[in-house]
Amino acid sequence: MARALSVVGERWTMLIMRDAFLGTRRFDQFQSNLGITRHRLSERLGKLVEHGVLVKVPYHDRPVRYEYRLTRKGLGLYPVLMSLARWGDEWMDKGEGAPLEYVHQTCDNKIRPTLTCSECGEPLRPEEVKPQLGRALQEIAAQLENGGESLEDIPSLLKWSM
Amino acid sequence: MARALSVVGERWTMLIMRDAFLGTRRFDQFQSNLGITRHRLSERLGKLVEHGVLVKVPYHDRPVRYEYRLTRKGLGLYPVLMSLARWGDEWMDKGEGAPLEYVHQTCDNKIRPTLTCSECGEPLRPEEVKPQLGRALQEIAAQLENGGESLEDIPSLLKWSM
Repeated sequence: MARALSVVGERWTMLIMRDAFLGTRRFDQFQSNLGITRHRLSERLGKLVEHGVLVKVPYHDRPVRYEYRLTRKGLGLYPVLMSLARWGDEWMDKGEGAPLEYVHQTCDNKIRPTLTCSECGEPLRPEEVKPQLGRALQEIAAQLENGGESLEDIPSLLKWSM
Repeated sequence: MARALSVVGERWTMLIMRDAFLGTRRFDQFQSNLGITRHRLSERLGKLVEHGVLVKVPYHDRPVRYEYRLTRKGLGLYPVLMSLARWGDEWMDKGEGAPLEYVHQTCDNKIRPTLTCSECGEPLRPEEVKPQLGRALQEIAAQLENGGESLEDIPSLLKWSM
């Protein structure tokens, strides 16, 4: 997750991504929608392109002009953005209701995005999900143990995965 | 979402929240797990308490010592963190596999957290979900139209909800 956050762990970056999911593609549109400075927008867009979350595609010749489109990696952030939007709507509403509502065109209902288990389909509750070390961290934990160090707990082992 | 990001739209804040979900509660534990400066940690924890995401609870008298626990509002961020972790695992893996795996104790399977529709249960794909203006933004759009202004599109109307 630390690596993920190095790409998207920042307010402006996430707001740019929301705009991209709503269909914004051009520099000037992002700028006017978000009220962000050109310098800051340019820096954030550059980072998203560098990490392969957006791709810069020419849409006009002479002068050449570019637009920014979501890649598959970028589209993969959809659950993050939708979960964050739902959380904001539930916990930070000032009595005006959600700014946006979402209709699932497959079933034609207004929806709440819900995080569920890929295997049984039930909503995931933190108290029912047990984290365990993946292979790489298991090996690190074993090395620490062999070296005579006391076995560390999961949160402290995570620094080895950054 | 902009309001949500004013609380959690930042790398360290999200890493603190991940640690809290993994069971970390005390200042010194957060500090040693994350390798963050005391000043920065103190500032970020203070903000999370101020926004009601964490609550500061005394666990020791003379001297009084506090720990930080997730509130219900904080627990509500679980889907955001799980979605972000899954995205990092899928798109930013360096060949070592996921640092953490998750077992759903209800069904006893290793899982991938999956964002689904609250109504039909199908996974949500961005191209099948249509955003529409909520009540407050509908009213703003109507006012703009009555004032003779051209009706703005969804991304540009969102600035009115910040």
